[in-house]
Amino acid sequence: MRKDGLLVVLSGPSGCGKDTIISKVLDHLTGEAFLSVSMTTRERRGTEQDGVDYYFVTPEQFRENVENDLMLEYAQYGANFYGTPVGPVKHLLAQGKTVILNIEVQGGKNVRRLIPDAVEIFVAPPSLKELERRLVNRGTETRDAIDRRLLIAQAELQCACDYDYIVVNDVLEDAVEDVLSIIRASALKTNHAMYRISEVLNHVES
Amino acid sequence: MRKDGLLVVLSGPSGCGKDTIISKVLDHLTGEAFLSVSMTTRERRGTEQDGVDYYFVTPEQFRENVENDLMLEYAQYGANFYGTPVGPVKHLLAQGKTVILNIEVQGGKNVRRLIPDAVEIFVAPPSLKELERRLVNRGTETRDAIDRRLLIAQAELQCACDYDYIVVNDVLEDAVEDVLSIIRASALKTNHAMYRISEVLNHVES
Repeated sequence: MRKDGLLVVLSGPSGCGKDTIISKVLDHLTGEAFLSVSMTTRERRGTEQDGVDYYFVTPEQFRENVENDLMLEYAQYGANFYGTPVGPVKHLLAQGKTVILNIEVQGGKNVRRLIPDAVEIFVAPPSLKELERRLVNRGTETRDAIDRRLLIAQAELQCACDYDYIVVNDVLEDAVEDVLSIIRASALKTNHAMYRISEVLNHVES
Repeated sequence: MRKDGLLVVLSGPSGCGKDTIISKVLDHLTGEAFLSVSMTTRERRGTEQDGVDYYFVTPEQFRENVENDLMLEYAQYGANFYGTPVGPVKHLLAQGKTVILNIEVQGGKNVRRLIPDAVEIFVAPPSLKELERRLVNRGTETRDAIDRRLLIAQAELQCACDYDYIVVNDVLEDAVEDVLSIIRASALKTNHAMYRISEVLNHVES
């Protein structure tokens, strides 16, 4: 019997710090955990590599993937589509790797439908005031855009109950430790770890 | 809304190292986690204190607790009864504390009936050969007694599937880290952590 890999989904309002948490978690789990590569219909830029930064496809190819139920989740931004093809994720899981998926709050449900034992983590800011402060400090958006993000964040926070775990990103190091603990514990869940009992029992006969 | 405490059950074959794991976990979580105090009908010895080492009761008092469904689990050893009264455990949980329960493999089911969101961890030895080595090295039991323990262990390992998590105690430090991760992750489970979302949302209005 072999160890199955673990799919870990992280979602949360824009500005909650998901990207930073994920990058630190990947640093801790080099060789064990991988960020899933998204598929997109947008143009390749600069040094971006197909299959590394994104899978670059035509709108027709993207649509075919969606129609054939081969996308874990997808969304449209402006004229372009972005999403997660299920094939490469399943390939890594079959090798026993941990795959991390950074997706929109609404995307989680479809992931669960295609990969039922995915572990879904909702990342929340410590408060809406703090989220506002972080968005303002980024200095990349107008006041109107920030207000819109805060409204969306409030709605998204209501979706937290659909997730398996809630991590509040107050102190970054604690949030990273939280996610690492969730990943470590999830691999010890009985449905993932029963193969170890077989190992213990079979070992005596060898 | 307040944080509920977590009941963590550890079970596993005799000699798997539960006691050592628990003592190290408690060292890491001083003030947060407590070992539940057992109730017993045996005589108090030496410096043992009632309510600290055990709750010392008469056989009649013990039987009344069992009949009134006030025991999380109990068992008989020789002429004496040992068990875990539910009252003190619930008291600690209501204060948001983590309570650790070290019980026989068969005891877990009744715990789950009385405290449905208990987290149950099965501790396994890395192999039956290694379990044998540990039991022999203890030097406290006859060869017959050790063989009996190994047979029981083999049967108990089949019960691992009834638990939430499986921790294989190969390297002690890893097993301790496993249990600490399970405890940390369990507190982040959505049913335990939804109050934090309320805090995030309400904070903005204050």
